[in-house]
Amino acid sequence: MRIRIVLARPSHPGNIGAAARAMKTMGFDDLALVEPRHFPDASATALAAGAADVLDRARVHATLGEALADCVLAAGFSARRRDLSHAPASLRDAAPELIAAAASGRIALVFGNETSGLSNDELARCQRFVSIPANPAYPSLNLAAAVQVACYELATAAAAFDPPLATARDPATLDDLAGLFEELERSAVASGYLDPAKPGRFMQRMRRLFARTRLEREEVKLLRGLLAAFAKRRS
Amino acid sequence: MRIRIVLARPSHPGNIGAAARAMKTMGFDDLALVEPRHFPDASATALAAGAADVLDRARVHATLGEALADCVLAAGFSARRRDLSHAPASLRDAAPELIAAAASGRIALVFGNETSGLSNDELARCQRFVSIPANPAYPSLNLAAAVQVACYELATAAAAFDPPLATARDPATLDDLAGLFEELERSAVASGYLDPAKPGRFMQRMRRLFARTRLEREEVKLLRGLLAAFAKRRS
Repeated sequence: MRIRIVLARPSHPGNIGAAARAMKTMGFDDLALVEPRHFPDASATALAAGAADVLDRARVHATLGEALADCVLAAGFSARRRDLSHAPASLRDAAPELIAAAASGRIALVFGNETSGLSNDELARCQRFVSIPANPAYPSLNLAAAVQVACYELATAAAAFDPPLATARDPATLDDLAGLFEELERSAVASGYLDPAKPGRFMQRMRRLFARTRLEREEVKLLRGLLAAFAKRRS
Repeated sequence: MRIRIVLARPSHPGNIGAAARAMKTMGFDDLALVEPRHFPDASATALAAGAADVLDRARVHATLGEALADCVLAAGFSARRRDLSHAPASLRDAAPELIAAAASGRIALVFGNETSGLSNDELARCQRFVSIPANPAYPSLNLAAAVQVACYELATAAAAFDPPLATARDPATLDDLAGLFEELERSAVASGYLDPAKPGRFMQRMRRLFARTRLEREEVKLLRGLLAAFAKRRS
């Protein structure tokens, strides 16, 4: 399965090692780290136990965008929050769509910092929000425990998953989307609609809107062509 | 739910604390320890984090029989083993029966020592055998990770938690959408991108793209504002 686990800004290297172990027990081996505070680290290696190979192959990235560049879908894990554009799906409800998406490209499960979770900027890079239902009085799963539960649920869902007839969809990569959003922002500024000094939440809202659609490659081309035509007429 | 977690002969007190935390996140608080090597212990308390109350109430027993005395059913967790009288059920398959049993009395989920698992004598005290499906090449879930997955699965099976928050979405009406599409078509023609004599499938594709998002009212406003800005610059 083409499923990457992404840990954004993990503080404790022990959690990185424990997450690698959790992944491997469920058959996953693609680990990406964004700005880990300490890595490599002896306590990561110790807690990885027999999953040192997953740590060895882990890639370290400077930005979440870089870690997601070749993925077709990113699911951000978060506790329930009121400021999300749409409520997170429960892990169990989200699993079938994630498994189906992983059949047509690489997907990412994104976990935030132990204390602060995923930032708004990080969540804006995710097209799906997922939460692990938990005790409202104490919803604090340890980071590696959350990775364990997510990998267990996806491995179980995959075992039950019959691949659908090959779909004709050719999903855009997150890199395609980054290009589209850059062009959109440039055009919005050039038209006078967006004040670069006071951008507000415009781009964040556009990202959320298009996150819900899961654009195809062809659609990204159409939209970029349209934006280019708008720009040309002005010049 | 009357579900007790029983740890038989745990070696590492940190695992006891992490198991308590895992339990509490899923709404469980009944922990029994059989011959723990070290307990109470500072590292158990540290890893319990906000679940110190679960540790405080944990009972320590000299034998597994004593820990199970008031239970109506005990499920022993083990990797697949050939020497069991019957094959273990997968956790997911076992969950409904366990939840149903917990409606009529206290049940126990029994986990063995970190290295050696449950002994034959301990397994003989269990009426059900359960395994967490895992990577055959590396099935070594950490003890607290196994407790986390088991508690997650049972809590989910019991549907013990609240449905997700109602979303505050204010969906666009079909009338809002018709207005947006008219404006989009007008702008695309005015920019020279769309030839009204040969429109092709452009508008059809845009409709299909936005149909997938289920636009909100506020988003329709944003998009129309942007299109108006593009048009203004040209005139």
